[in-house]
Amino acid sequence: MSTYPVQTIAKQSRLASRRLASAPESQRNLALAKMAEALESIKTEVLEVNSQEITKARDEGQSEAMIKRLTVDDKTFQYMLSRLQKVAQLPDPLNRILAGHTNSAGLKVLKKSVPLGVIGIIYESRPNVTTDAAGVCIKSGNAVILRGGSEALLTNTLLADTMIEGAVAAGLPEHAIQIIRTPGHEAVGELLKMDEYIDVLIPRGGKGLIKRIAEGTRIPVIKHYDGICHQYIAADANPEQAVAIAVNSKCQSVQVCNALETLLVDKQCAEQLLPLLWTAFDSNRIELRGCDETQKLLPGIAPATEDDWHTEYLAPILSVKIVDGIQAAIAHINHYGSGHTDGIVTQSLAMARQFEEQVDSASVMINASTRLSGGGDYGLGAVVGISTDKLHVRGPVGPDELTTYKWVAYGEGHLRA
Amino acid sequence: MSTYPVQTIAKQSRLASRRLASAPESQRNLALAKMAEALESIKTEVLEVNSQEITKARDEGQSEAMIKRLTVDDKTFQYMLSRLQKVAQLPDPLNRILAGHTNSAGLKVLKKSVPLGVIGIIYESRPNVTTDAAGVCIKSGNAVILRGGSEALLTNTLLADTMIEGAVAAGLPEHAIQIIRTPGHEAVGELLKMDEYIDVLIPRGGKGLIKRIAEGTRIPVIKHYDGICHQYIAADANPEQAVAIAVNSKCQSVQVCNALETLLVDKQCAEQLLPLLWTAFDSNRIELRGCDETQKLLPGIAPATEDDWHTEYLAPILSVKIVDGIQAAIAHINHYGSGHTDGIVTQSLAMARQFEEQVDSASVMINASTRLSGGGDYGLGAVVGISTDKLHVRGPVGPDELTTYKWVAYGEGHLRA
Repeated sequence: MSTYPVQTIAKQSRLASRRLASAPESQRNLALAKMAEALESIKTEVLEVNSQEITKARDEGQSEAMIKRLTVDDKTFQYMLSRLQKVAQLPDPLNRILAGHTNSAGLKVLKKSVPLGVIGIIYESRPNVTTDAAGVCIKSGNAVILRGGSEALLTNTLLADTMIEGAVAAGLPEHAIQIIRTPGHEAVGELLKMDEYIDVLIPRGGKGLIKRIAEGTRIPVIKHYDGICHQYIAADANPEQAVAIAVNSKCQSVQVCNALETLLVDKQCAEQLLPLLWTAFDSNRIELRGCDETQKLLPGIAPATEDDWHTEYLAPILSVKIVDGIQAAIAHINHYGSGHTDGIVTQSLAMARQFEEQVDSASVMINASTRLSGGGDYGLGAVVGISTDKLHVRGPVGPDELTTYKWVAYGEGHLRA
Repeated sequence: MSTYPVQTIAKQSRLASRRLASAPESQRNLALAKMAEALESIKTEVLEVNSQEITKARDEGQSEAMIKRLTVDDKTFQYMLSRLQKVAQLPDPLNRILAGHTNSAGLKVLKKSVPLGVIGIIYESRPNVTTDAAGVCIKSGNAVILRGGSEALLTNTLLADTMIEGAVAAGLPEHAIQIIRTPGHEAVGELLKMDEYIDVLIPRGGKGLIKRIAEGTRIPVIKHYDGICHQYIAADANPEQAVAIAVNSKCQSVQVCNALETLLVDKQCAEQLLPLLWTAFDSNRIELRGCDETQKLLPGIAPATEDDWHTEYLAPILSVKIVDGIQAAIAHINHYGSGHTDGIVTQSLAMARQFEEQVDSASVMINASTRLSGGGDYGLGAVVGISTDKLHVRGPVGPDELTTYKWVAYGEGHLRA
């Protein structure tokens, strides 16, 4: 396929979005099924192209973390297909009547959900974003412009081209899914100027990327910033449960936004619990950094500085603070946290309720690992990310979150008095 | 009351917002009732202070339009009170369970509506914004920082101080409602820097003000841009209804965002309808500007240039274009419109449906005046404006639209596998 200028791609997306907005649910779901089918038939080719890109990345001396993100193996590929199939099974996010009434003069008013229009996704290496984003966008009737990392360009274009075939086979417009093939930063710069044609940008990647995009465009951006996530172990917490939740929150995967970064332990249970926690984290090779009180109970651990409380480590390091009661825990979280995911371990309904109400975060976990915050466990099917914004969408960004609404008023010659 | 620095005000609002978030519905509604009561008791004083400001504005040679906006007379005052009372009667926008499920592992997940937090309202002269905004914010559990135009400073501060008394009498925090008393642009500049404390800014006023604010802050802004509103008179429109709707859409008030700016007439009914429309608009002293075809049928009217189709006149001028069918009308609206409010006059259900689906606007009117788009007729009670954004809120901004949500997950030691 030829390489169009970014402006042409953006215009084509806008036109496609007008047609997509009227595509019935059955057609959008058929497209998702055909996209998954088409991908299934080229599995060998995808794994082959991807392994070439892995070899190249290795030759260029890329980090193992990067190689891991870039890799599409058999399991990843099946997971990508299953997400497309899952999204197809979700209820239709479009044409839902969100509100409505008939006013005293007989004007019938409806508020109904409609697609946002054109969505640009700018992401770093993971090729599963290519299929997840396309799936969520098609489900919600949006045209999507994909722009993945250059190290995965071949894998991503192969995936996108195949999905386009599937979508077209279901009768959707060819430009419902597009991918920018031009390498280099210039194309992204062009994309940021397309506020006439693009309704929202979703950058996925490091903080630097997101900041650069948010500050360089007039297009609204759904941001995915830090997850400085906390667990507060209340005085009455079940010790075994508290340790298990803290360890799972931190260790199940350290490089992700909903991993634990700061553990708050109530001073009433600190003496009993901190040694247990230390042993558990130590066996998982997690470095602890503690407040003064924590250091007294765990002599030999490093001190946590003011900076630590503000840090998303994304690494096997955990800061630990002893707090005096739930109010102090909530104050710490609302001050130092990033409003992503914060939890409490308690047996008290009153404390659970207070924590739920007063912690100002996208996800509040009661007796559950922070790692459970996300589209899968929340029942959204595939998502294109986890928003740290408060406006429009907070937390997981699934098909529902890529809709807006319009008001429709039916009159019979109704005038304003 | 003393004049606090803007940063102090912003911090106080953030603290108040934390307490407001847990205020039960009954307390917020009681506060609204007490705010209205307190205002009622100082009616004479408000009208007196306002008339001093009117005199001053007249002495300074302000325009009549400005004086009109500034004026609080008996009727305006009663209307302001009635809106507070209406908002109190609306259903609670908070703590609604928007979605929820229990996942296969037994984790119970809820998505519930919560306040945005702190809302800054920057507006030009109309003092009714002071009471409307405070009402909508208190209803939705948000702390509000008001910043009105300097010409209405005395009226606005009197209104705000009185509402604060009412809110405090109901047990809400003193800083739930605050008003910036410092005159001059500097205070607004300070406010724009308070992204740490303010969750959203809503500017109300001319395009220049909104643009300046949107471009000068990192705080999310709910924007209220142009209303380049259209009515399309389809070939099968009832002529009498079409003329009445066109005239009401344009003439009921010309200076407002949902007033008609461009009339599209189907070529199949143009010959019959245009003379009737001309007579009707002429008797309302509206200047028509027409496309070539329109000029042929209405010799003597001024030509409409390309600029006219892009213009929100907010004045007694109307551009008129003859279009060849509904598809051409929709294409014109989606190209030249501002996505605010656009209508069709037709007897055909199929055309109404096509127009509803394909016109990409916040409000789509079927056989109704564009002037009916807004919070009142849509059943929202008081609103703080009409958003032209697509993200977060589109169209009228009422209490529901000043909420976000949080996800709450209840587990029993749930971990990620």
